[in-house]
Amino acid sequence: MKSIKVGVYGGTGYSGWALIQLLLAHPEVAIQFVTSERLAGKDLSEAWPLAPKIPLQSALKVDLQQVDCVFLCLPHTHSAKIAANAKKAGLFVIDLSADLRLNNPEDYQYWYKVPHAAPDLLPVVYGLPEHYREQIKEAKLVANPGCYATAILLGLLPLAKAELLAENMPIVVDAKSGTTGAGRNPKQNILFSEVTGNFSPYKIGRVHPHIGEIEQQLAANGVKKGNLIFSPHLLPVDRGILAAIYATVKNAQQAVTAIQQSYTSEPFINVLPEGEFATLAHVVRTPNAVLSLTPAGENHLIIMVAIDNLLKGAASQAVQNFNLLFGFDETTALLNAAQRAGA
Amino acid sequence: MKSIKVGVYGGTGYSGWALIQLLLAHPEVAIQFVTSERLAGKDLSEAWPLAPKIPLQSALKVDLQQVDCVFLCLPHTHSAKIAANAKKAGLFVIDLSADLRLNNPEDYQYWYKVPHAAPDLLPVVYGLPEHYREQIKEAKLVANPGCYATAILLGLLPLAKAELLAENMPIVVDAKSGTTGAGRNPKQNILFSEVTGNFSPYKIGRVHPHIGEIEQQLAANGVKKGNLIFSPHLLPVDRGILAAIYATVKNAQQAVTAIQQSYTSEPFINVLPEGEFATLAHVVRTPNAVLSLTPAGENHLIIMVAIDNLLKGAASQAVQNFNLLFGFDETTALLNAAQRAGA
Amino acid sequence: MKSIKVGVYGGTGYSGWALIQLLLAHPEVAIQFVTSERLAGKDLSEAWPLAPKIPLQSALKVDLQQVDCVFLCLPHTHSAKIAANAKKAGLFVIDLSADLRLNNPEDYQYWYKVPHAAPDLLPVVYGLPEHYREQIKEAKLVANPGCYATAILLGLLPLAKAELLAENMPIVVDAKSGTTGAGRNPKQNILFSEVTGNFSPYKIGRVHPHIGEIEQQLAANGVKKGNLIFSPHLLPVDRGILAAIYATVKNAQQAVTAIQQSYTSEPFINVLPEGEFATLAHVVRTPNAVLSLTPAGENHLIIMVAIDNLLKGAASQAVQNFNLLFGFDETTALLNAAQRAGA
Amino acid sequence: MKSIKVGVYGGTGYSGWALIQLLLAHPEVAIQFVTSERLAGKDLSEAWPLAPKIPLQSALKVDLQQVDCVFLCLPHTHSAKIAANAKKAGLFVIDLSADLRLNNPEDYQYWYKVPHAAPDLLPVVYGLPEHYREQIKEAKLVANPGCYATAILLGLLPLAKAELLAENMPIVVDAKSGTTGAGRNPKQNILFSEVTGNFSPYKIGRVHPHIGEIEQQLAANGVKKGNLIFSPHLLPVDRGILAAIYATVKNAQQAVTAIQQSYTSEPFINVLPEGEFATLAHVVRTPNAVLSLTPAGENHLIIMVAIDNLLKGAASQAVQNFNLLFGFDETTALLNAAQRAGA
Repeated sequence: MKSIKVGVYGGTGYSGWALIQLLLAHPEVAIQFVTSERLAGKDLSEAWPLAPKIPLQSALKVDLQQVDCVFLCLPHTHSAKIAANAKKAGLFVIDLSADLRLNNPEDYQYWYKVPHAAPDLLPVVYGLPEHYREQIKEAKLVANPGCYATAILLGLLPLAKAELLAENMPIVVDAKSGTTGAGRNPKQNILFSEVTGNFSPYKIGRVHPHIGEIEQQLAANGVKKGNLIFSPHLLPVDRGILAAIYATVKNAQQAVTAIQQSYTSEPFINVLPEGEFATLAHVVRTPNAVLSLTPAGENHLIIMVAIDNLLKGAASQAVQNFNLLFGFDETTALLNAAQRAGA
Repeated sequence: MKSIKVGVYGGTGYSGWALIQLLLAHPEVAIQFVTSERLAGKDLSEAWPLAPKIPLQSALKVDLQQVDCVFLCLPHTHSAKIAANAKKAGLFVIDLSADLRLNNPEDYQYWYKVPHAAPDLLPVVYGLPEHYREQIKEAKLVANPGCYATAILLGLLPLAKAELLAENMPIVVDAKSGTTGAGRNPKQNILFSEVTGNFSPYKIGRVHPHIGEIEQQLAANGVKKGNLIFSPHLLPVDRGILAAIYATVKNAQQAVTAIQQSYTSEPFINVLPEGEFATLAHVVRTPNAVLSLTPAGENHLIIMVAIDNLLKGAASQAVQNFNLLFGFDETTALLNAAQRAGA
Repeated sequence: MKSIKVGVYGGTGYSGWALIQLLLAHPEVAIQFVTSERLAGKDLSEAWPLAPKIPLQSALKVDLQQVDCVFLCLPHTHSAKIAANAKKAGLFVIDLSADLRLNNPEDYQYWYKVPHAAPDLLPVVYGLPEHYREQIKEAKLVANPGCYATAILLGLLPLAKAELLAENMPIVVDAKSGTTGAGRNPKQNILFSEVTGNFSPYKIGRVHPHIGEIEQQLAANGVKKGNLIFSPHLLPVDRGILAAIYATVKNAQQAVTAIQQSYTSEPFINVLPEGEFATLAHVVRTPNAVLSLTPAGENHLIIMVAIDNLLKGAASQAVQNFNLLFGFDETTALLNAAQRAGA
Repeated sequence: MKSIKVGVYGGTGYSGWALIQLLLAHPEVAIQFVTSERLAGKDLSEAWPLAPKIPLQSALKVDLQQVDCVFLCLPHTHSAKIAANAKKAGLFVIDLSADLRLNNPEDYQYWYKVPHAAPDLLPVVYGLPEHYREQIKEAKLVANPGCYATAILLGLLPLAKAELLAENMPIVVDAKSGTTGAGRNPKQNILFSEVTGNFSPYKIGRVHPHIGEIEQQLAANGVKKGNLIFSPHLLPVDRGILAAIYATVKNAQQAVTAIQQSYTSEPFINVLPEGEFATLAHVVRTPNAVLSLTPAGENHLIIMVAIDNLLKGAASQAVQNFNLLFGFDETTALLNAAQRAGA
């Protein structure tokens, strides 16, 4: 008997479908509805050849009384009002969009160039379980972190907490993402003919809005805003993020130790032994983050962080948050066979 | 001093840009205009990072008096009327769309599900130089063949002419194309995220409209219509077509000889020695077609034909036709260094 | 408490690792040993970044007394003698190589160009559960079918059994496989630099040794040997097979019905509704085969069959066979969440 | 009448074949021999399906008297002695290996872990024409720069010369290369099955030997050695390098101007307007380098440099050097049609 009834807003995008697959495998979850505006009235299998026959409804028509929790897999600006309604109905909310990640509406407007649609909701707990687990357990609303932000904060938060980042030095992050990160709406720049054989930076410098949530979390741990230099790139792969973080640190060896110790007992975080490097192959189609740490002299540390953008960068992190909200073991429905075998 | 002035309709698609690159290298061609409706008023380099700064005009505004010849790189249904106007203005016309390929408007309507917009133009010479060279030399309008049709007819026409195809037997063609064949307008099914790692058939059986032009040319050489079974597939590559033709023949060895002899002195057609197989790597980014011939018993022949869909399947074939129309050496602007060196 | 103890020969190749992942998820299986000659003494995680720490042993040193069943994921010619020893020790054997697939040693020598190393073992039950389920249940040795053979026989055996294949007509099979089908030993033709952007046929006509096992199974159902024309190709994808089968049939509609009825209650076989076509995206990383059926006139049927070459074409089919041998539900450890949900 | 006779050592690798294609198109070059140890006695077309029939000889058997200049497309450690012999014979030498790039043998041993085989040859002019053009014109031996080094030095040398790099600050370079950079000898890590869908760093920190030649050139312009942090990565593409250089500068706007002015009249260097970013699509299959410059605050500059690793990173740069050595226009055989048209 499945104990928790959930609804998924936005089931036809990449992260929505990734989430639905995980929820179908969850022993305590019953999916009550999935929404899609474009395919309302049709079936989820119209969007995904491997999907079961789940009817799709317009978000305007769903009955919130039938669920305990909603997952919002919607574009930013579309989530805030739905989250507000769900909160009013007393539901738990896990928002995978950017709408609830920034603590104040001015920051939202700065990074997203539009006013926030439900500023009264803010601030909301930031759903990075490895660093905010206890707060998530007490929350009703959770802002699931951005995919890039997840990778970068997993590398930097242990250094911020240990006060090991050198002050007033640039933190360079050169990150690369697969094309599912750009969504499933057709655009010329993500056509196969354009992406294959290519590799391209975009929004580099101080432009990408994930800088907002990254610096907010770092600032909460004493790191001054404004030093992050962030270059995202589009990789010719469908899934995965690899972020290379170049940090000036007070002591590289202490920095290595701080990161290792942060994740000693984390089920989804794997810090590789020295000399091995994180790659997409370590993480794609898994809920894991893999880090590798390479000191370059006494004061520099290269941190490579690999995640699957659709899983640890979206759907599996949402399920971690769900498990915490409802008191289930955090790994429920997420460990694969190799991990259960003690990998 | 460039002697021939040309205009290119539709310079922002894949075949238009492939054509412009060849025309820029042509010693006798001056490009007078390039059209684009979407980017009219802007520059070709907005569409292609490697393009020179050629202004783009709306097709409605170009002055036909300034050119001798027009190339139409437009979707089907868009070419016919422009071709009619250009003909009226006394110009040479090379149409890369499907609009002029079928000899009668009923066939056009059957295969393309729309009435023909300028039926009085039909029939037009079919621009497959290896088989219709003399007719092309005398023409003012040329219908550049379809990409699949080019590959398949290069394999089958020698057998039709030699009356070596067994009667009333299916001719099976299993063909595979790169994604540029599906154009540059964004659609979900040609996104990188959908195509990478995938391989998918489409319009299989007796559905794809290139069947119309293929059977028309075969019928002109005595082969009854209706026996072609054609399965196109989308490959996770950007360029190239490989067509596998499974023909039942009266005598496989005679069939091999007939094909070899057809192409002995053709500059762009290479029939591989027995035991080697045509691949995309033989042809991509070249104007060549490569064929390999594998008998399977006495009465079956497997013909593999590889071309670059944007070159021999579109732009370089258009330049072959241009060279024939204007009396230049057919290979002008088309032979690469290795071929000039006697490859 | 895991009830069945197994050993895996050859855990460092693609199919070996795919199998180990499934076995780790199997509630009744305990892996006692994994062999590798190249990495003996090291750990499986040296070969695969996601693998648990399972020690690798030389095949010469394993203790057969500790296991009930062995899986042989070895190259052909390496399996036969190990299978003979395992049989002598009273074990169940599932051989994923070609060594046990042909019923007589002469056929083996004809197709593989080497003498059979253990002819006394032959014949062995052919492990295609959808067609030989009852025989597999009674067997101790099972020959797991070849990847291409699995796809092709799933399409053709229902027609053979229903006597719907036209006599003395060629059966054309144009098949395409991902690169994992070529193994993990480095060779120039499977380098990324050579495969990306390319597509290439190999061993076409009557050459590929899977013809032997396909025609053997068809012959057992009354189809004369010698009419199969088989063109395998290498696709620029890592996983998946799509086989296009062009069959001349006595009645296309009866042929469609025969195939549909064969698989009505098969858990891993999905026949698509008319108008949809099987693609790799339907099957990659799943244990399923997906078929689509397209009549072309009254006497021709195009059968597209898609499988994952490492799963239904190797490892998951081996687990199906294992489940049958030991009396478990055939789908144990194989259904994914979407399927369990009733996809 | 071709005026210069050349020999190519190592014609069967990726850069050798790229070079031969350019030399075949060069109006003043006659190729007298091509060497290959593995395919000696066979023909270049055995190695490359598009190659002309040039016989391959062992390097031990070629007659140096017949040529004016040799190109060495050999692995490092294989070039030095052949270069010494060719010098003794009075020939011009363009070495594409690493053997002649470092000025002293100790540095060579430090970075390549083997003693230098012909230390008397050192130092040799560094063949980066945009920065050492006059020296190359006077040379007989030229060390063609490494592929990564070319990209990185094109970005950094203008800043070093203008004394705009902040002192004692790390220079972070995060670079990505296609798989042809790893050569054509089969290795497991460059198999298609391993590379597709993956992205992986290697030799990161202060390990990759190109650091040696980069810091040597920077040091010659006043930049202290030891501050370069260099992370190369393997991209799932066959060709192209994109290097992201994160430099702390004295003044970002002056830095932009310095780079722009350095390349104003360079035929193969294109600095993009602000707001556009260099991508592989700008350069693959061209002899060009494309740079984009993005200030991040007053003291940081992000320099993206894209080149084709086989052309500007190897073969076309070798031809630039050849043209300079022999007094030809530097662009001979290198400008494509779009560039000649004034792109």
